[in-house]
Amino acid sequence: MRLIRHGLKGEERPGIELNGERYDCSNHFEDYNRDFFQNDGLSKLQNLISESGDKLEKIDESVRWGSPVARPGMIMCVGLNYSDHAIEAGMEIPTEPILFMKATNTLSGPFDDVPLPKDSIKTDWEVELGIVIGEDATYLEDKAAGEKAIVGYCVINDLSERAFQLERGGQWVKGKSCPGFSPVGPYLITKDEIADVLDLTMTLSVNDQLMQDGSSKTMIFDPAFVVHYISQYMTLEAGDIISTGTPPGVGLGMTPPLYLKKGDKMSLEISGLGKQGQTII
Amino acid sequence: MRLIRHGLKGEERPGIELNGERYDCSNHFEDYNRDFFQNDGLSKLQNLISESGDKLEKIDESVRWGSPVARPGMIMCVGLNYSDHAIEAGMEIPTEPILFMKATNTLSGPFDDVPLPKDSIKTDWEVELGIVIGEDATYLEDKAAGEKAIVGYCVINDLSERAFQLERGGQWVKGKSCPGFSPVGPYLITKDEIADVLDLTMTLSVNDQLMQDGSSKTMIFDPAFVVHYISQYMTLEAGDIISTGTPPGVGLGMTPPLYLKKGDKMSLEISGLGKQGQTII
Repeated sequence: MRLIRHGLKGEERPGIELNGERYDCSNHFEDYNRDFFQNDGLSKLQNLISESGDKLEKIDESVRWGSPVARPGMIMCVGLNYSDHAIEAGMEIPTEPILFMKATNTLSGPFDDVPLPKDSIKTDWEVELGIVIGEDATYLEDKAAGEKAIVGYCVINDLSERAFQLERGGQWVKGKSCPGFSPVGPYLITKDEIADVLDLTMTLSVNDQLMQDGSSKTMIFDPAFVVHYISQYMTLEAGDIISTGTPPGVGLGMTPPLYLKKGDKMSLEISGLGKQGQTII
Repeated sequence: MRLIRHGLKGEERPGIELNGERYDCSNHFEDYNRDFFQNDGLSKLQNLISESGDKLEKIDESVRWGSPVARPGMIMCVGLNYSDHAIEAGMEIPTEPILFMKATNTLSGPFDDVPLPKDSIKTDWEVELGIVIGEDATYLEDKAAGEKAIVGYCVINDLSERAFQLERGGQWVKGKSCPGFSPVGPYLITKDEIADVLDLTMTLSVNDQLMQDGSSKTMIFDPAFVVHYISQYMTLEAGDIISTGTPPGVGLGMTPPLYLKKGDKMSLEISGLGKQGQTII
């Protein structure tokens, strides 16, 4: 299934994409949030589509696309999870997953404008494969349990202000949490629709110039492992989002480095997960 | 005012402490959350107490104390914010605030047991002054605006697993987010009741032995500055919690280091903000 959310920012409603059209499901579900995933919402949604998908109301093309999941309890990121990106960033290849958080209020729609942060000179892009968690998970036993806790995948742009992240002391969160820094979507694709999550092409262009052209094949720690791993340190909750790292081609890694400025247009795509795009304002 | 929340974990209700007794306010307010603070809930609470405080229902002593604020959108922490703690931790004194997040699902009541994390050998304590944010805040103009955005203060135990935090690669969040690692309370004390937030004694004992005996006097970056500073990098929301760092005396800083084990009892106190205590299970 291809879950979507639609409507004004802060007022998004749940919906579904069928045959290239968006349909509203807000008469049947409150939202795609922790309660939905914890209480078998996905099966209920499947039943709804099977039994009365043709009765759902079509959503006009002009309606804004929201993030396909509601604001979660956590947006967790895996740092340097592609060995060639670690090298371009001038950092060591990690021996176990590096974890950091983004503020959950950074969540935004897949086509929303991204404001350049105040005093920013090093705003950078990162196309990433996002995991959405389907059930609360603490101390999962093994990778198979990690896999089971995943409900599906999405495209994420893990925007980063490199000066804030790396030059202002200490931890990365400072450069990862500016307003609008987490466009997610357009879809949450349920995992049954992805034949091999470790064989997805991932691209990002800026102003039609291809900057990132990678594949999830070169991911160091795969999604099932990452979910199992994180659950050893904290509780993951249904609806939480994990962004699994970016392949090479970010602005920081260029010679000289290249950063985003007002008016720049980003386009992101992961095969099977759809396209998103944002303009820097 | 001394805001409290009471009831079973996940079912807490808002209340107030008056003359040493707890009273229920759940007929008047849904919870002490973002909506409450954003919509002038504090003035409404003040009016309620003035006009009909004597009609509120008393809460039985046996009822559990919850965190005095609802689960926030963010628990942000300031690292190494006491110069002598930075020295005992073997780290450099920061020139600007080091920021890191804790998972918001770590929030717990002031007297809740704390489970020793699986495979933990270095679980440590940290008494901290907590700030509660009273209004959404982005790009605050100055320290005065930072001060205005603070609604009050509370006691926090910023529990930390040092091996997870420092020996597992990268960022600190991994050792800060284990289940139950953020006991908060017993009270949210509104700032009008604190004469000088930079002159509060802060103590923490383990099994009645005094481990931390500090003062907010030796804080490097004060609360108003911290709020102003964070708002330059991200949006703070009403109800968010900021933990402002710990004075010396943590287990990591001892020779040899001393860590928590099952059965250990912690007692924390900040002058004017009350006492909390937890048992390691």
